[in-house]
Amino acid sequence: MTKLNPRAIVFDMYGTVVDVGAVAEACRAIAPDPVAFNSQWRAKQLEYSFLRSAMGKYQDFWKVSEQSLAFTIDRFALTVDAVQRRQCMEAWLRPTPYPEVLAALPRLREGRPLAILSNGSPPMLRTGLERAGLRSHFRWVLSADAVRIYKPSPKVYRLALAATKLRSRDILFVSSNSFDVLGAKSFGFRVCWINRADTPLDPLGPRPDLVVRSFEELATAVK
Amino acid sequence: MTKLNPRAIVFDMYGTVVDVGAVAEACRAIAPDPVAFNSQWRAKQLEYSFLRSAMGKYQDFWKVSEQSLAFTIDRFALTVDAVQRRQCMEAWLRPTPYPEVLAALPRLREGRPLAILSNGSPPMLRTGLERAGLRSHFRWVLSADAVRIYKPSPKVYRLALAATKLRSRDILFVSSNSFDVLGAKSFGFRVCWINRADTPLDPLGPRPDLVVRSFEELATAVK
Repeated sequence: MTKLNPRAIVFDMYGTVVDVGAVAEACRAIAPDPVAFNSQWRAKQLEYSFLRSAMGKYQDFWKVSEQSLAFTIDRFALTVDAVQRRQCMEAWLRPTPYPEVLAALPRLREGRPLAILSNGSPPMLRTGLERAGLRSHFRWVLSADAVRIYKPSPKVYRLALAATKLRSRDILFVSSNSFDVLGAKSFGFRVCWINRADTPLDPLGPRPDLVVRSFEELATAVK
Repeated sequence: MTKLNPRAIVFDMYGTVVDVGAVAEACRAIAPDPVAFNSQWRAKQLEYSFLRSAMGKYQDFWKVSEQSLAFTIDRFALTVDAVQRRQCMEAWLRPTPYPEVLAALPRLREGRPLAILSNGSPPMLRTGLERAGLRSHFRWVLSADAVRIYKPSPKVYRLALAATKLRSRDILFVSSNSFDVLGAKSFGFRVCWINRADTPLDPLGPRPDLVVRSFEELATAVK
């Protein structure tokens, strides 16, 4: 296989570098089925980001996360006080890197800069990366907040061109989220899909250049 | 209660005037749990419409429905031949009106024109309305296809202003779909949410002017 040799690698954050499943742990105190609860919360969080983009009614990802949490609590008919609600939210500020990420990042950094490009708000990203011990690996930490619309809008992907001063085809964009893989490929990046759960690709047309199961496999595929 | 006296009433189609749950019947031949199958299909159909709008990669709702069906078949690991696939799709051309709709439409028409404003493609809407015996009730049948983006983009809601020559506050927009209620209210319409399943409202800010459980209740609330 020909190895990829991108001039920069840009990563999605939640679900890609760090495990949003870990947020479920924080919900254990309030939800009898924390995995189902967290899965509904995450789905609503994405839906609200899509809707706000479509309606032109941006609010930052912290607010979107609070609103989707409120809906999910309501939907599951749970009784939750303000302290518990805050504990669920603060799990987003203590994300867990996937196990193989810390070992792979130094290999991926050899000879090229790395960046984060996320729908997360700047404080969420800053705090999360620092607490996870990941901040120093990334030259740029880019948030959709700068353009007040969410991925997969091309306006967000364009932030990576402005920061790196590269053309889209010189950038490898890495995400575990199917909608982000489609959006990034449609924008013009080379794209790696980290498909940890072996799910089918959404058949909207664009296909990733590379599909791997982990950061380790990605590090092996890149020159 | 003060009665609403709109100068026109504009309706969403699927889930509002006609029952998309009825599509599940057509999937009975291929899916062991047709309700779960149809629910996933519908969720993906909406997701793909949101993603295509965000990416600026419009394809019509028939195509979006085919692609979301293909994903759902894959996700449920079903074996489905071309004939069965077509049977599922064609259920969208034979939609069932909710039981109280036919009796309520003549009351709602008294003194004002009615319209459909849907993400559905023009052939889907035309065929569906004709087969359901509903076509004659609506002066306008408007499709998002005219602007090549989906609700809740304001560009789609604007089609109703262009057709009716009314201001947004003179129009009552009626939908059962939460995202559509939010989008229409954010656009500036007066909005009625037909909340048949008694679900909580997505707490994004905009709130409908009226919440009812059926077309019958709606007809009673309108002058």
